[in-house]
Order: sequence, then structure tokens, then C-alpha cells
Amino acid sequence: MPSQQDQYKQDAAEAAARIVENGMVVGLGSGTTAQRFLHALAGRLSRESLRIVGIASSDQTAALARELKIPLATFGDHSQIDLVVDGADEVVPGTLDLLKGHGGALLREKIVAASGRKMVIIVDESKIVERLGSRFSVPVEVVPFGWETTQKRLKDIGGNPSLRLAKNNAPFITDGGHYIMDCAFGPMEKPKEIAHHLDHVVGAVEHGLFLGFASEVYVAGSDGVKILRKART
Amino acid sequence: MPSQQDQYKQDAAEAAARIVENGMVVGLGSGTTAQRFLHALAGRLSRESLRIVGIASSDQTAALARELKIPLATFGDHSQIDLVVDGADEVVPGTLDLLKGHGGALLREKIVAASGRKMVIIVDESKIVERLGSRFSVPVEVVPFGWETTQKRLKDIGGNPSLRLAKNNAPFITDGGHYIMDCAFGPMEKPKEIAHHLDHVVGAVEHGLFLGFASEVYVAGSDGVKILRKART
Repeated sequence: MPSQQDQYKQDAAEAAARIVENGMVVGLGSGTTAQRFLHALAGRLSRESLRIVGIASSDQTAALARELKIPLATFGDHSQIDLVVDGADEVVPGTLDLLKGHGGALLREKIVAASGRKMVIIVDESKIVERLGSRFSVPVEVVPFGWETTQKRLKDIGGNPSLRLAKNNAPFITDGGHYIMDCAFGPMEKPKEIAHHLDHVVGAVEHGLFLGFASEVYVAGSDGVKILRKART
Repeated sequence: MPSQQDQYKQDAAEAAARIVENGMVVGLGSGTTAQRFLHALAGRLSRESLRIVGIASSDQTAALARELKIPLATFGDHSQIDLVVDGADEVVPGTLDLLKGHGGALLREKIVAASGRKMVIIVDESKIVERLGSRFSVPVEVVPFGWETTQKRLKDIGGNPSLRLAKNNAPFITDGGHYIMDCAFGPMEKPKEIAHHLDHVVGAVEHGLFLGFASEVYVAGSDGVKILRKART
């Protein structure tokens, strides 16, 4: 029997799959919730005369898409994505600021996100936080060359960085061939400032703060699926 | 017979080699002028009881250092460099702002530069410009995944980006496994603003604007070697 959280992830994924339209280029996120979206999307493709192509944000997602017979394209074919659907580790209502990349695919996820006309985030209600950094560290993808010095620079901006390790205790390596530093900033009052600092760190390729990317967040809980939109400022 | 420019490069390289002190960790730049510095440094090591270790900013530099018997270390051994010596494609007197990376080693060069207590740039006088971007494009190291979308984002900030190709017409690949987009911004009035925009481009790993890194610039010309220092602001 699926856990309640699993059921919520499923609900959010199915709701997002329903908004996919014929002819769309769909950005396919990574992680367990995004995987459920792939399954739900594959279900629609098998039942309906719906034609779409997907662009995968990780090798793992690409493998699952192939398995599910979701047609894949590359950015060489389509440099603009109509709809990106992805999960998130933390979501702030109002701003729809996100923390992502706990699964290690943040760089490609951000490139996919940056190429989407619309980005829908699917989460269960446990992902809603008041402040980013409340539960998760911010993953920062860094260049292997000189990573020790990049760690120092991340420390200087208050990141308390630690190198993510794989099961064999060697550094975890991303799809892009980089390392990940998990930076424990703690709950953030001003995520924009931290994102800004991270953007400037030499040796850092990309980070898990996704600010201004999400168009809508589908939050599944005991009341069903709620759609969060950006608060007007 | 060496050309006059070659002689100037040699003069600047030798002047920089003279300031290396016993026990130093030396950051070794890349490119033709930096190579001359390696030769001059190797000369001192063979003649004097000078002990140093070098940290190389490219595979090519590492190979030359090994050939010249300059002992090499990694950032695992030393996360701080005492003195970085490197060339540049363009230098602005006063600010000592640099444009670098025409040779394709900008990411590692910048990581080395960011780890140095002192950075000395060695150039012949042809490299002095009033404004960065006067002669060279700004090389931007980008992630291969979705490079077409990164190119679009670079275009949006006025970069006129073109993908650098290797001799076989495939994309040029850096030591870090990335591509390079050469961005023709033209002569820059406000290089800081452009650097700032580039830092924020999703998919861009690092760029060739080195602002605030150089401590001194050794400029060799017909009058010998002049040392440029930062103008007090």
C-alpha cells in the first residue's frame, strides 16, 4: 500500500499531466515526484491521440522516458520548452521560490527551467516552508578542479559547505561531471541575496535556489490538489 | 630570430620569474607568455637553491611544467597560492581589469586567480587597451547540456555569442569538459555590469572578464618592463 505522501505525489503528478496539450514540448524534471509525472503522462499518451516531445533534465529521467515510450527531443531540436514539470525540495508560497537539487540534477533542471515558457512544480504538502533552507541545504554544483578553494569561497559567504559523497565515499559526480557542495545556510530571510552571492562564486557552476522560475505550484494534501500562484507584488 | 613581440613577452616573463621567492606556492598560468614564465622559472630552479611548487591552470601547462621539472602540487595540498603569474589578452591600465581566456583555459585560470594572494600579469605592450572588448570577444565557458538555450540567454544580454569550434569543426572542449561561447560585446564602458550579467546566466560556468584579480601588470615594450599598479580610487 502506498504511503500517504506517495499518494499525494501521485495526485499532484496526475493533475499536472492533465494540463499537457497536443504538440507541446515538455520539460521533464527529475526526482521521485517527477517520475510519477512521467508515468501519468505516459498513461495519457497510451490512451489518447496526444503527440508531445519531452526534454529530459537528467540521464535517469531520460532512461525512464525511453522505458515509458515518451518521445524525447534535444535542445538542438527545440530551444524553447512550452511546459516544464518538476518537483522541488522546498517551496515558499507567495513568491513560489524553490529549493531544488537534493537529488543531484540541479544544473540541468535549471537549464530546463530557464528554457520553459511555463513551469509547474508538483509537490506534496510536506514541501511547503515559510523560508527556504528550513529543512534542506542548498546544493551547489562545483567544478572538480580546485574544489577545495571553491569550498573556501562558499564558506566565506556563510554556506557551511560540505562535499557530497557517493556510496563508495568518493565525491558524488553529477550528470555534468561536477561535484556538489551542500551548503547549510539555514532558514533564509533574503534568498535573493544568497543566490546573488552564489552566482558570483568562482568555481560554482549553478545552485539549487530557483527564484522566479515557477509559474504555478501544485500542492497535494488531504484536501486534494491546491494550485499556488505567485502573489502580486 | 624572435620577433619583437616575442622578445617583449620574454622580458615580462623573466621579470616575473625574478620575484618568485623560496617556499612559494606559484599559480602557473596558460598561454604563450605564461609558457615563457615557466621556462624562466625553470631556469632559476636549475641554477639556484630555490624550492617552490606550482599549481597549473591547464593540462597543457601541467605537461610543460613536468617537462621542465617544475614540481607540481594540487589544491588538495595547498588551497592558497602565494603568487599567480599569468598572461592576458587585454589589460586596462588604472583598474587592471583583464580580458582572458582566448586560449580556452579561462575557468581554471580564474579558479587559480581567485586562490592567489597576489596575481602578476605579464604582457607585451600590444595587450594594453582603453576598454575591454576592444580587440577580443569575451569567452564564456558553458555547460554542453542545452548550450543552444544558453546561447540564447547570452544573446539576450547583448553578447552576440558564437560557439567556438575545434579544427575538426566539432565544438571546442575545455579541460573541464565545457564548451566556449565567444561573446562579441564590443568595447565596454561598464565591464562590471557585463560581468554581473554573465555571472547570472544559467548554463554559463565562467567568463573571461577578470575584474579585481590582478595586483600588478608587467608590461614589456621598447622601454623595458613597466610595472602597472592599481590606481587608487
